[in-house]
Amino acid sequence: MIPEGLTFANRFDGVTGSAIREIFKYLAKPGMISFAGGNPSLAALPDTICAELAHDVLLADGKRILQYGATEGYPPFVESLSRYLSDQYGFDLELNGVLPTTGSTSCMDLLLKAFLNPGDAVLVESPTFLGNMQTLNLYQARLVPVESDEDGVRLDKLEEAVQKYHPKLFYVIPSFQNPSGRTLAAGRRKPIAQMAAKYGFLVLEDDPYRDLRYTGEHLPTIKSFDTTGHVAYMGSFSKIISPGLRVGYVVAQKDILRKCTIGKQGTDLHTPNLNQAIVDQFLRRGLLEPHIQSILPAYREKMDLMLQELEAFPRGTSFTRPEGGLFIWVEMPEGFNATRLFDRAVEANVAYVPGTHFYPCGGHHHTLRLNFSNSTPEQIREGMGRLRRLFEESL
Amino acid sequence: MIPEGLTFANRFDGVTGSAIREIFKYLAKPGMISFAGGNPSLAALPDTICAELAHDVLLADGKRILQYGATEGYPPFVESLSRYLSDQYGFDLELNGVLPTTGSTSCMDLLLKAFLNPGDAVLVESPTFLGNMQTLNLYQARLVPVESDEDGVRLDKLEEAVQKYHPKLFYVIPSFQNPSGRTLAAGRRKPIAQMAAKYGFLVLEDDPYRDLRYTGEHLPTIKSFDTTGHVAYMGSFSKIISPGLRVGYVVAQKDILRKCTIGKQGTDLHTPNLNQAIVDQFLRRGLLEPHIQSILPAYREKMDLMLQELEAFPRGTSFTRPEGGLFIWVEMPEGFNATRLFDRAVEANVAYVPGTHFYPCGGHHHTLRLNFSNSTPEQIREGMGRLRRLFEESL
Repeated sequence: MIPEGLTFANRFDGVTGSAIREIFKYLAKPGMISFAGGNPSLAALPDTICAELAHDVLLADGKRILQYGATEGYPPFVESLSRYLSDQYGFDLELNGVLPTTGSTSCMDLLLKAFLNPGDAVLVESPTFLGNMQTLNLYQARLVPVESDEDGVRLDKLEEAVQKYHPKLFYVIPSFQNPSGRTLAAGRRKPIAQMAAKYGFLVLEDDPYRDLRYTGEHLPTIKSFDTTGHVAYMGSFSKIISPGLRVGYVVAQKDILRKCTIGKQGTDLHTPNLNQAIVDQFLRRGLLEPHIQSILPAYREKMDLMLQELEAFPRGTSFTRPEGGLFIWVEMPEGFNATRLFDRAVEANVAYVPGTHFYPCGGHHHTLRLNFSNSTPEQIREGMGRLRRLFEESL
Repeated sequence: MIPEGLTFANRFDGVTGSAIREIFKYLAKPGMISFAGGNPSLAALPDTICAELAHDVLLADGKRILQYGATEGYPPFVESLSRYLSDQYGFDLELNGVLPTTGSTSCMDLLLKAFLNPGDAVLVESPTFLGNMQTLNLYQARLVPVESDEDGVRLDKLEEAVQKYHPKLFYVIPSFQNPSGRTLAAGRRKPIAQMAAKYGFLVLEDDPYRDLRYTGEHLPTIKSFDTTGHVAYMGSFSKIISPGLRVGYVVAQKDILRKCTIGKQGTDLHTPNLNQAIVDQFLRRGLLEPHIQSILPAYREKMDLMLQELEAFPRGTSFTRPEGGLFIWVEMPEGFNATRLFDRAVEANVAYVPGTHFYPCGGHHHTLRLNFSNSTPEQIREGMGRLRRLFEESL
């Protein structure tokens, strides 16, 4: 009950909180094996390195780190991050600037704050990441799903939707998409950047999984084809260093970035300096690349194991075979209901995310998302066995 | 130039960025003595303690700290903070909950997100903190200034404005107000909580300076008189531990806090665990109170020195004599223009914040805000001398 006479803002109409964050509550149950969430493996989190780096940076530059920082970022980190982005990604840092953020959720928040009025159309892949759908809903966006296939969003459907809805933004996750695990084909990337310039909308390229590639080669980002400022790139160190540190960044055309910076003055003033300084040390000491290489084999092994377990699932089960990332997307035969079955899965001590939560318009109850990174091989074997038996019974 | 075809959101109409953050750009000038800003003294920032605490918590609980955390906060910190708030502040944690935030700017953002629709009336003290005015403007609030006197906001003017404007919120800084340095009188606090319950609006009690008291006794918070949930309390460790760590908190009625939590899922997902864990250790190890006691004498000495320097200012200068906090408010004789004089002050290597920026409707060019915490006694003597000579010349 809200205190008498008070009313909440309209932006909360119909927003009830993240389904995944609600699901988390069940996961504390003893014996639970969770394929919900998108957590990195605990083994992949560099706690002793971070302990040393935190200690070092606070002794070396503690006064600056503990004092108010610039909204534009902790200067040494802005420098090392810019170098990293121009070396690794080839981003043009004349047209664009870089803004460190408090995780990539905050990139999304700042970009939506900069651009969206209530009712503005935003195109999204279907399915797409439910966390950012909630962020979009809080800005009262009109979400328009665009059909995807195994190569990511379909260009014909995208252009059709652009012509019909005149969107302000198109939100896309190009690498090992959340939730589908699919990667946007190389050949579709430049056309998306061109379409944005032609029709005058902004692409929000959300790319937190890019470095978790287990097979194949890195693809050029959509942003790398952007010569006009119509693509904003959202990066994150959550999946390759630590999500708990909350360090992400936006790369965007300078006037867009300036609006994000002004918006950020009103959300958290600046991203904590200590967290930026720790990531800065990963970059400066050359720790990032070896760390990523050290975590990839176990992730790949887990993914392969989960895929292998899926082979034994009932006839009619189909699933993606990602080249990286954290998720496998499963489509069960029509009639199967992963949403309804969720409670029974929790009873059987195994959890997933029902696929319906990833669709702007719901439905698709025969789909589900599985995460493999946050379980041990033994848990994957055992948990997938539980799921398989449950699914067999229910068909 | 914004890329072709794109348009920014209406919420940015007329919002140009924080005047203080703009002023900061001038402060890098060699020899500059700055009484602008509201930075703690560098000497007061506990860098070696934080280095040790960061190292300890990452070794002791590093996997949990580096993993995704709960939006509701890092559990040990929620526990120690709740105990601290109920011991030190007497807050009723049955009616209310506590939400750790990424600095107190983010408290403001989350509460406005929870409540404000564009055009909603919000009452503010006049003058008030310009940073949060910007945050209010980004939510397209209709700001209604309420007259204050030496005891803080006037109750008759407040009730008049409530009856006339039916505000959703009243934003107030009760202790050593920013910018005025004034403290809301004890006798005005309970009536404000009662008025909020009677008329059905929410008081946002922003209280980051409370523990920086140099004389007199702590006053009860407005929140301590709230029995109905009509007061939300915004606290911060920025002024007593470190602003760069960005750790603040909201204490609010549980349904209000739930909306803030859902909003926070869409802004930064959660406040970084490491930063919460460091503050947690300050509380658990009993380091906070001795640390506060250790920084107060130097702050008091600086304030007294600045007040003494102000005595020599031209006849007709009046100024507040705060019991704590970081700021002294100066009113020069009518006709004096602190806004216009700012550039000449910067030329003379001394900076302040023109008072006009703290008024929702501008004007008041004869006023200015001085910060004493971030300068040495020598800088205060020298800088106040420069200001005095400049002011004398210009009168």
